[in-house]
Amino acid sequence: AAVDKGVDFANYFCTYAFLYHQKEMLSDRVRMDAYYNAVFQNKHHFRGKVVLDVGTGSGILAIWCAQAGAKKVYAVEATKMSDHARELVKANNVDDIVEVIEGSMEEVILPEKVDVIISEWMGYFLLRESMFDSVICARDRWLKPDGIMYPSHARMWMAPIRSSLGDQKMNDLECAMNDWYNFVEVTETHYGVNMNVLTKPYHEEHEKYYLKTSLWNNLHPNQVIGTPAIIKEIDCLMATVDEIRDVTSKFSLSINMDRTRLSGFAGWFDVHFRGSMQNPAMHKIELTTAPSVDNTTHWGQQVFLLYPPPRVNEGDRLMISFLMTRSKENHRLMDVEFTYELQHSSGKRLPPVTSKFCIE
Amino acid sequence: AAVDKGVDFANYFCTYAFLYHQKEMLSDRVRMDAYYNAVFQNKHHFRGKVVLDVGTGSGILAIWCAQAGAKKVYAVEATKMSDHARELVKANNVDDIVEVIEGSMEEVILPEKVDVIISEWMGYFLLRESMFDSVICARDRWLKPDGIMYPSHARMWMAPIRSSLGDQKMNDLECAMNDWYNFVEVTETHYGVNMNVLTKPYHEEHEKYYLKTSLWNNLHPNQVIGTPAIIKEIDCLMATVDEIRDVTSKFSLSINMDRTRLSGFAGWFDVHFRGSMQNPAMHKIELTTAPSVDNTTHWGQQVFLLYPPPRVNEGDRLMISFLMTRSKENHRLMDVEFTYELQHSSGKRLPPVTSKFCIE
Ligand SMILES: Nc1ncnc2c1ncn2[C@@H]1O[C@H](CSCC[C@H](N)C(=O)O)[C@@H](O)[C@H]1O
Ligand SMILES: Nc1ncnc2c1ncn2[C@@H]1O[C@H](CSCC[C@H](N)C(=O)O)[C@@H](O)[C@H]1O
Repeated sequence: AAVDKGVDFANYFCTYAFLYHQKEMLSDRVRMDAYYNAVFQNKHHFRGKVVLDVGTGSGILAIWCAQAGAKKVYAVEATKMSDHARELVKANNVDDIVEVIEGSMEEVILPEKVDVIISEWMGYFLLRESMFDSVICARDRWLKPDGIMYPSHARMWMAPIRSSLGDQKMNDLECAMNDWYNFVEVTETHYGVNMNVLTKPYHEEHEKYYLKTSLWNNLHPNQVIGTPAIIKEIDCLMATVDEIRDVTSKFSLSINMDRTRLSGFAGWFDVHFRGSMQNPAMHKIELTTAPSVDNTTHWGQQVFLLYPPPRVNEGDRLMISFLMTRSKENHRLMDVEFTYELQHSSGKRLPPVTSKFCIE
Repeated sequence: AAVDKGVDFANYFCTYAFLYHQKEMLSDRVRMDAYYNAVFQNKHHFRGKVVLDVGTGSGILAIWCAQAGAKKVYAVEATKMSDHARELVKANNVDDIVEVIEGSMEEVILPEKVDVIISEWMGYFLLRESMFDSVICARDRWLKPDGIMYPSHARMWMAPIRSSLGDQKMNDLECAMNDWYNFVEVTETHYGVNMNVLTKPYHEEHEKYYLKTSLWNNLHPNQVIGTPAIIKEIDCLMATVDEIRDVTSKFSLSINMDRTRLSGFAGWFDVHFRGSMQNPAMHKIELTTAPSVDNTTHWGQQVFLLYPPPRVNEGDRLMISFLMTRSKENHRLMDVEFTYELQHSSGKRLPPVTSKFCIE
């Protein structure tokens, strides 16, 4: 399905045109440290090289590449943020090296191929926003055969968690429904119209909102009640859009905490800066968005709530099959489906349960 | 400029597809009472008549028209809310009379002309959302020559106000800027990039957000410090899009409170159900969104802040010229420009001041 560019702009790009939003990313120390160290601890990848920054935003990564010794940096940005990037480049005296180009990566024509592609393309749970498509497109068109991707690898993770969010959201839903019943009564009494036929759709709409949409959360590591599993690995040099469009994974998780509740699952990601096989990084850098006390990120984790939450014990196992597809209405949002089977340490298996969620 | 339908849907219609949003309107007692009384106290306008409900949403107005004795009601709705409207119509046993049509009013073909057009098309400060355009289009195509409009008239009001919102927003802006200066320092120290060149645009972005965008507020009547003025009157039977696209008005306001500050201006509207000249209402109904203690509406008032707020006294006069145009990026949003001249009761005149705002 072709994407309407105007709609995509209204739904997606518009937010990136605000300095407010760029600043949020620029204030994420974990993110900034990872990219900063990746560049400056691997200057040999940049010195005298031609670099492409896909989605330069404020221009920060492009400026770093120039400071690390790049010969030329093409910094492509779809929104009007490109004007600010151009100012920032100039103010930091790298305007002889960094060329800011306003346009969408898919349409821009560069005068030459590049040695390195750098990009901060990761959305919630890695793939939300589907921006990696644009990086793939840039790579296939503009990266030299022996070029390097920054980052070079990415992984999606999933773990079982406990959380009070489920009770909270369930409570919100109940409040919303109480309010609705009151509304139905008032509307019947005062205005002679019986709204009861809409009770079910109203409940569905709110259930979807409160319970069936993944939640942004920065979890404490002790909320993770089992060993996390890798559900997808991406080699940024090789991946195709066909390989990332859907994510399917069958995996099992073991619970490592006694007498707790499985409130749901949390998804997060990490990315790695390892250079390429022929041209490896001198210092390999990792950026992780896993639950952490001190190193939280603006990505947090995505929480998928199970309601009601089953009781679990140490040694229980979960067999999970996971499917993530793109939303039909908006290719930058995702639909997620879990089927899990709980096997108690006694060997007893509960029947499989399927839950569907949106990532919005 | 032609409007991209997909973009218009992403920016505007989408919210109306949620029952949550329809319920907000259906829970507005002032709004509901006005339309309910307008219909049921003027049954002669509906009995045996053909009615068109422009933007039926949940279907509420269409159902009332049927209950009041209409022979046929065409209920047009652009969003998927039309499915719910159809269910509601059926559950309330008027599906032999009300025909719900999913489509945009501009494109729908009706099998006949209608006697009455009813619509709840009013946005913040009356014209936000520009939905009255669709009502005009419906009227020109489908209303019989002697047909009636519900509502029949609309007016925009403006008054000088005092409010602590200005100080609050000014404080928010200062906090945002302190945070920014801190961010500039960190980014320079830790990441070797000087962001200072973006300080001015950052300030502008936030000033626009906090001070140059009108605010939704339900004012207390004692916050109004002068006599409100009517700045626009619309006869819904006669108005053309050309007449409502821009609103210009020169008017004067007198301050009727001593030793206070002119924090800004508030805009609101009322609409009237008076029928037509040849076929007047038996009971004229008014729906006002003016500041009120007991009869607040979901529309509230739109507040345009002046900063710094000039000191004013009883007997001072304000000469104002007002201009409202549609935003270039989105025809459903507005740009507003005020020029005011303060004349103290002593006769002394202060130089004119111009302020610009967005209604978002
Ligand atoms: N297809 C595309 N073409 C050009 N820019 C794009 C794009 N897809 C996303 N972007 C831009 O990519 C940016 C991603 S956010 C990252 C910004 C910056 N590189 C930083 O690390 O701080 C946004 O500014 C967005 O507008
Ligand atoms: N051009 C157009 N064609 C069809 N529906 C429209 C329209 N412009 C706005 N609408 C619809 O008009 C409704 C306005 S809100 C009012 C809903 C309902 N009549 C009530 O009084 O409660 C929204 O549901 C919106 O989707």
